[in-house]
Amino acid sequence: MTHPVSLAEIWRGPRPESVHLGHAVICDAGGGIVEAWGNPDEVVLPRSSAKMIQALPLVASGAADSAGLGPEQLALACASHNGAAIHTDRVGRWIAGMGLGDDDFRCGAHMPWDKPAHDALLCSGTAPCQVHNNCSGKHAGFLTLGRHLGGGPDYIDLDHPVQRAVMEAFETVTDAPSPYHGIDGCSAPNPATTLRAMARAMAWYAGAGEDTAEERAARRLWQAMVAHPDLVAGEGRACTELMRACSEPVALKTGAEAFFIAILPQRGLGVALKIADGGTRGAECAIAAILVRLGVLDPGHRAARRLCNAPIINWRGIETGAIRPAAALA
Amino acid sequence: MTHPVSLAEIWRGPRPESVHLGHAVICDAGGGIVEAWGNPDEVVLPRSSAKMIQALPLVASGAADSAGLGPEQLALACASHNGAAIHTDRVGRWIAGMGLGDDDFRCGAHMPWDKPAHDALLCSGTAPCQVHNNCSGKHAGFLTLGRHLGGGPDYIDLDHPVQRAVMEAFETVTDAPSPYHGIDGCSAPNPATTLRAMARAMAWYAGAGEDTAEERAARRLWQAMVAHPDLVAGEGRACTELMRACSEPVALKTGAEAFFIAILPQRGLGVALKIADGGTRGAECAIAAILVRLGVLDPGHRAARRLCNAPIINWRGIETGAIRPAAALA
Repeated sequence: MTHPVSLAEIWRGPRPESVHLGHAVICDAGGGIVEAWGNPDEVVLPRSSAKMIQALPLVASGAADSAGLGPEQLALACASHNGAAIHTDRVGRWIAGMGLGDDDFRCGAHMPWDKPAHDALLCSGTAPCQVHNNCSGKHAGFLTLGRHLGGGPDYIDLDHPVQRAVMEAFETVTDAPSPYHGIDGCSAPNPATTLRAMARAMAWYAGAGEDTAEERAARRLWQAMVAHPDLVAGEGRACTELMRACSEPVALKTGAEAFFIAILPQRGLGVALKIADGGTRGAECAIAAILVRLGVLDPGHRAARRLCNAPIINWRGIETGAIRPAAALA
Repeated sequence: MTHPVSLAEIWRGPRPESVHLGHAVICDAGGGIVEAWGNPDEVVLPRSSAKMIQALPLVASGAADSAGLGPEQLALACASHNGAAIHTDRVGRWIAGMGLGDDDFRCGAHMPWDKPAHDALLCSGTAPCQVHNNCSGKHAGFLTLGRHLGGGPDYIDLDHPVQRAVMEAFETVTDAPSPYHGIDGCSAPNPATTLRAMARAMAWYAGAGEDTAEERAARRLWQAMVAHPDLVAGEGRACTELMRACSEPVALKTGAEAFFIAILPQRGLGVALKIADGGTRGAECAIAAILVRLGVLDPGHRAARRLCNAPIINWRGIETGAIRPAAALA
């Protein structure tokens, strides 16, 4: 087994104070490893970085077209959104159009990450709804697929037709049986795989053409993400800022516990990375550094500087340190 | 060099999803290593875990007695407090008694961590003051020492009499020259040392008697921390909950980037630990596990279960995983 390697460093004074170790893989469309750090065969839970796979049967089955979903809804199906009005209004209208309401979700409620939305709820003493959950777009997709496939209201159950379709799609695009699954924060099953298999799946998305329903679905999903970076995450979030900053179309998606993927259609490449300790700042720094390395992100761009070469500023505005990619990524 | 070792694990499904590596040392009063994990000679910034050292000259110099400080103020001088009313009222009165005001602080302002205090400021559109800074008690101590020693208003400058006294105290109790320093979030210099030297310093606190002014000061400081766990951090915080939970007097103090120390006076032991990636949940899990291992914390106590054997509960109340100490600490 290969140990995780340093991918991001937090400096204070003349030395690193903390270090984020992890694993990262870049795969080509044939599944070959272009470059790797740490252990490409590390078994991981991709968490929300798998959302474009969890949305694949929604599109490939024809459910999305039957429901008249456009790129905005497809981007939201792949999103970990901020719960801002631009997200909750659209997801709310989507399920209302199916005659469903907030109680039909099975994701649970949490306060929105978007500060204006958060503060408005807090200061009016209003409890958040399930539509505020960052995964509500994915769940709207599950509800849409559930309507198409049949099955009961608990679409997050592992043996529900929705999750059976998701698991089949996951094992198809990763080209391997999933050894186990975890239950996600939003209650959906999240299948495990290797980091290499996840990068290969992302490369398959990057190279997806028009030959099969699955390829066409994959293509529509990454195109929707690239077309709507604000819907995939939100203002100030790494996915949104980096998708806007890249010099060519790149679909990016974070996942809990410091996962990150990238789909690079013009190069036919897929990237998957996991910071071993689950530290999000490390994952954001590492993916930005890899995008710079691949030549699709200007290191001088504001988003690149904020995420992977950022000064740490204290409460009095003094620069006390920096976050930097490790030498292996530079 | 010895690499960091696994100290805490985040499980989801049948396997760990993330792992926190780090270093930990238990020292006795003679400076001998009782037990160690990872590299005891790791050079670290102890951050706020050094506050009882930064407060040592305040007491040993006689400044605290001249200003009439009691155990509450000494606990606050060692605190990273929540900015609740119990903290800000006391720190505000302390500096007002010296004829000083919020503008005399050099810590900078941030929103209080205490939720009621935070929400009250936010929903009334009120900006936080420097007294809300979690370090304002330490800075009130610096202001008090500055009044005693002389020097200008910028008591956080490295060559100010206050910081020269702090650095001398730090090098005395760690018994080694500090190789460098960083600037802390609150703008005070934070001296580097080895983890072993920090554990030795904590053991010296644990064994401090009545022979010298420094020993009496050290004794008063840990006694103040143990007497006022609510002032050292606040409701819901690990330091406060664990000090309340221990079966004998134990002084505990967290530091930024996943530092933690413990002073065990009845055993003459000191503990210092650092999670390499800076993940606070890992440091809290590891210190709780070490306290259980040392026999001063009942593993069935609510605080122990919450910090080091806690289920991870998702937005619908489903148990999806757990945080657990690594096998090496169990």
